[in-house]
Amino acid sequence: MLDALAAGAALAAESARYTGLGWMRGTSGNLSVTLGRDPLRLAVTASGLDKGELADTDFVVVDAEGAAAGEQPGGAGLRPSAEAGLHARIAAVAGAGAVVHLHMMAPVVAAELWPDGIVLRDLEMLKGFGRAAEDDEVLVPVVPNSQDMRVLGDAFEAVHDPRTPALVVARHGVYVWADDLMTARHRAECLEWLLRFAMEVAR
Amino acid sequence: MLDALAAGAALAAESARYTGLGWMRGTSGNLSVTLGRDPLRLAVTASGLDKGELADTDFVVVDAEGAAAGEQPGGAGLRPSAEAGLHARIAAVAGAGAVVHLHMMAPVVAAELWPDGIVLRDLEMLKGFGRAAEDDEVLVPVVPNSQDMRVLGDAFEAVHDPRTPALVVARHGVYVWADDLMTARHRAECLEWLLRFAMEVAR
Amino acid sequence: MLDALAAGAALAAESARYTGLGWMRGTSGNLSVTLGRDPLRLAVTASGLDKGELADTDFVVVDAEGAAAGEQPGGAGLRPSAEAGLHARIAAVAGAGAVVHLHMMAPVVAAELWPDGIVLRDLEMLKGFGRAAEDDEVLVPVVPNSQDMRVLGDAFEAVHDPRTPALVVARHGVYVWADDLMTARHRAECLEWLLRFAMEVAR
Amino acid sequence: MLDALAAGAALAAESARYTGLGWMRGTSGNLSVTLGRDPLRLAVTASGLDKGELADTDFVVVDAEGAAAGEQPGGAGLRPSAEAGLHARIAAVAGAGAVVHLHMMAPVVAAELWPDGIVLRDLEMLKGFGRAAEDDEVLVPVVPNSQDMRVLGDAFEAVHDPRTPALVVARHGVYVWADDLMTARHRAECLEWLLRFAMEVAR
Repeated sequence: MLDALAAGAALAAESARYTGLGWMRGTSGNLSVTLGRDPLRLAVTASGLDKGELADTDFVVVDAEGAAAGEQPGGAGLRPSAEAGLHARIAAVAGAGAVVHLHMMAPVVAAELWPDGIVLRDLEMLKGFGRAAEDDEVLVPVVPNSQDMRVLGDAFEAVHDPRTPALVVARHGVYVWADDLMTARHRAECLEWLLRFAMEVAR
Repeated sequence: MLDALAAGAALAAESARYTGLGWMRGTSGNLSVTLGRDPLRLAVTASGLDKGELADTDFVVVDAEGAAAGEQPGGAGLRPSAEAGLHARIAAVAGAGAVVHLHMMAPVVAAELWPDGIVLRDLEMLKGFGRAAEDDEVLVPVVPNSQDMRVLGDAFEAVHDPRTPALVVARHGVYVWADDLMTARHRAECLEWLLRFAMEVAR
Repeated sequence: MLDALAAGAALAAESARYTGLGWMRGTSGNLSVTLGRDPLRLAVTASGLDKGELADTDFVVVDAEGAAAGEQPGGAGLRPSAEAGLHARIAAVAGAGAVVHLHMMAPVVAAELWPDGIVLRDLEMLKGFGRAAEDDEVLVPVVPNSQDMRVLGDAFEAVHDPRTPALVVARHGVYVWADDLMTARHRAECLEWLLRFAMEVAR
Repeated sequence: MLDALAAGAALAAESARYTGLGWMRGTSGNLSVTLGRDPLRLAVTASGLDKGELADTDFVVVDAEGAAAGEQPGGAGLRPSAEAGLHARIAAVAGAGAVVHLHMMAPVVAAELWPDGIVLRDLEMLKGFGRAAEDDEVLVPVVPNSQDMRVLGDAFEAVHDPRTPALVVARHGVYVWADDLMTARHRAECLEWLLRFAMEVAR
């Protein structure tokens, strides 16, 4: 099992970075790191806190359902977000080592324009998203928002393509994943660029 | 009564943060914290100063009319903004513990598009504004600008819905409130996101 | 005569701030402070330097024509921009204590939309520009670009209204002035906001 | 031959600056400095690293083909980007002392609007790009993207005008060059401004 405290420090640093980019406004969004797989354990940023000012222990260790599990380095007072359940589902199904859920503007506006999924193709930035720059049609899936993480998780599985490490939740935000937090950030940054590009060109 | 000097330090720190976001350009905008309710006393940022460089004592203690009241930690040379009167009215009517008045671009442009109020619905970010993400129609009220705080205050009371912690003043800016400054900021950040989203989609 | 070295430190600090806002891209733009009026002397940021990294002596003392005059704290190697001549003209005609010339995007795009001048009215932010929020029609003048500062200076005088502390030079940038650098910045920030607002609403 | 370690420190500092501007999202983009001309040697930022966090030795010394050449201060583990070949070609053909390849949004969107090249004329900011503000029609060339650097290099040579220090690669990004890294940055900043202006006006 990965060191939970090291994961917590990384979660805090990455959260502060996303806050500076305007992608975790209010207390929105949450990040997770997979700590172990048998049983599945994730460190997820705690709910309701300012994401620009997290302490290294402001996370909750959760199980495959997104429920708090075992000893909590940050104490029993921290709550996991309901969305921790979707983080766990993505970690399980896609084998992600890190999942970032961000309230970027671009994916949510793009989902209004293309509710059946956003097609990207022949763009160099697709490399940074984990795909190819040429002859590789990428469909970024869009699912409707829900407050029920099982509904969202089933919707995710129904549209999941192992080649595409992102899910847009309409009128809500985006999930992006990778083996580690830094790669997830790089993919999220590239996806955001690609979606802004697609919308600029579609005007 | 809350510690006025602690309130002043928080007002200065939050003002610097909003300045960095571009929401207090020039010397515009002002923030307040409710210090006590019987009689009503607020600490309001002083008028005419650069909001990115406030000292911890750059505030004025005002009464229910927005007039300077009692001993002033920053000295007699600081003036409350005329808008302090509307801060006090919001603190009294809505029970706010903190009110932020910001010159964001999004609410002022949105008010031109929707002068009778801005309708938001079925968006996850509404949670961060203090409402529900589903099946909860939110009307962000818009009132005409005035230089007379009693006129603005009456307009506020006429449209005030206790569930909606914001007021847009057309061709001017926005007021957002909560129990404390940090929650007010989170709500302001989410509202700004929601209004940009609404305008992007309406294009 | 004002202390030239104190003026230089303020010019460097303000230039760095504008660079951070993206309003002095490349080595563009220049700022000046009036050091004395009889004879007219200005401290103007030196030409060709990165405006985010000016030293406190990176300025040139110029006369009413914008030519280097007298002892130079930064040495003889620094050149005044050709635009120093327009700074001096504004200092003489408008009585400005500080002039900022910025390559903001908003005024230059607005000048394409409204080449005969940009009308602003009934907007709270006009207060921060030095005008009134109500019943005060403001015409921000636009003149054609020129490489000849006498042509630009004559065009400035032909459109100058003592109530309006700004001049837009089409396909170039904006000049804003006030008694001191901080007030000039506040006015520039408010004008930029107002012009973005005008363009957003005009779409 | 220029000091490779000094070049590496400058590459790291400039990369961090571009990252802050959002022009090197993910691990995209790369910068180079010409170390010597006979034989041609460049220091190019290493591939696959976060451009906001480069160490001073995170570069590769490459030859005229963009292949690693000779002793590597950062060790044998660093890889040059495939794009190093185009950097070397630009250094050879245009005599550039520094080349910056950035994933700015503006040039890539502009290339969709004007696939045969972007015409700029009579704009003051052209001075900062190395051209004249008046009576000087500038054609910023656009070439199709390719994964083969020889194809891209040939396309560059076919459109190269020695007066124009930039190349837009459609659906990819932009190359800008000058004698040194700071001048290349100033030109890149001015070009980005000019392209945003052109698109705003063309709407």
